[in-house]
Amino acid sequence: MPQGQPSVVPDDGLTTRQRRHRPLVIVHTGIGKGKSTAAFGLALRAWNQGWPIGVFQFVKSAKWKVGEERALRVLGDSGEGGTVAWHKMGEGWSWVQRDAQMDNAEKAREGWEQVKRDLAAETYRLYVLDEFAYPMHWGWVDTDEVVEVLRGRPGTQHVVITGRNAPEKLVACADLVTDMSKVKHPMDAGQKGQRGIEW
Amino acid sequence: MPQGQPSVVPDDGLTTRQRRHRPLVIVHTGIGKGKSTAAFGLALRAWNQGWPIGVFQFVKSAKWKVGEERALRVLGDSGEGGTVAWHKMGEGWSWVQRDAQMDNAEKAREGWEQVKRDLAAETYRLYVLDEFAYPMHWGWVDTDEVVEVLRGRPGTQHVVITGRNAPEKLVACADLVTDMSKVKHPMDAGQKGQRGIEW
Repeated sequence: MPQGQPSVVPDDGLTTRQRRHRPLVIVHTGIGKGKSTAAFGLALRAWNQGWPIGVFQFVKSAKWKVGEERALRVLGDSGEGGTVAWHKMGEGWSWVQRDAQMDNAEKAREGWEQVKRDLAAETYRLYVLDEFAYPMHWGWVDTDEVVEVLRGRPGTQHVVITGRNAPEKLVACADLVTDMSKVKHPMDAGQKGQRGIEW
Repeated sequence: MPQGQPSVVPDDGLTTRQRRHRPLVIVHTGIGKGKSTAAFGLALRAWNQGWPIGVFQFVKSAKWKVGEERALRVLGDSGEGGTVAWHKMGEGWSWVQRDAQMDNAEKAREGWEQVKRDLAAETYRLYVLDEFAYPMHWGWVDTDEVVEVLRGRPGTQHVVITGRNAPEKLVACADLVTDMSKVKHPMDAGQKGQRGIEW
């Protein structure tokens, strides 16, 4: 809950108001829990503002984020806040017909191509690129290109990227970076993940 | 996304299934962003499971968590998942009539007394005690008592506590602890908080 006066007032020619409303690149990284849940918690604030939200899940998972997905779909369809579009890799990015023949690296790249198109078209005001740090870390998607596209994106589009091992260049370009550090996890005490908590 | 085999299998007489479903005490602490947003993201999973959710906001704030509150109220009223009860300190814990005459320490203690009653009655399955680390850190609420109550709570009740400076005794009693570390924040670059992001 940071409030009050910033410690530095940059000489960037912007008014405080203009500077306040600059769009953000936000990164949640680290080995602890909470990277994705915090991104979806942020989406609740965006929804409340009436912003169109685009979620892109970049790593195929047996559990996905079923709770968050259902909740955000119900919110998006409620007619009370913003809209929510939810895209999943591996179940087929909805715009890719030939998904079955593609390997995961190709699928990730297709997803990124769609994000690029949406950013250029200003489709959403908040993008949740869930687990997108992995395809960059694995070299499937070029971090330099991601940084260039983020830097050049038009309008007011906030982008949240989650995942361990966020590349340094991404961190350098981001406005807000939180490292979720594991202090303690039930797995360390022999307890496996459970519904309602892990998914 | 921790999955697979735990590194330790304790000799606690529980089956893997029993151990998996043990209720958790979860703490989100540290000076970085994401402590509360991750707690509310977790609430989406609980909602999806149909669990009754109790939110207790322990620190009065000009902005509160308006986005999360509205989103969770809409979800709770949708009839599709769990219910949501939302309690705010300072706007009056709903059960306290004499709120106006109380100082913040008293209000925090009243809130904790209500949490104790709800835990004893098993009112909720997920408790979000937002910013509750502060009243413990400030000595308004006795950490030893909190730990004792949490250890002795009946049934299957998960409790998430957020806030900086989580007391060591609380961390010691918790099952899952994440420290949100600040790597970078827009305030450092002279940018103040904005709607949709900070609230």
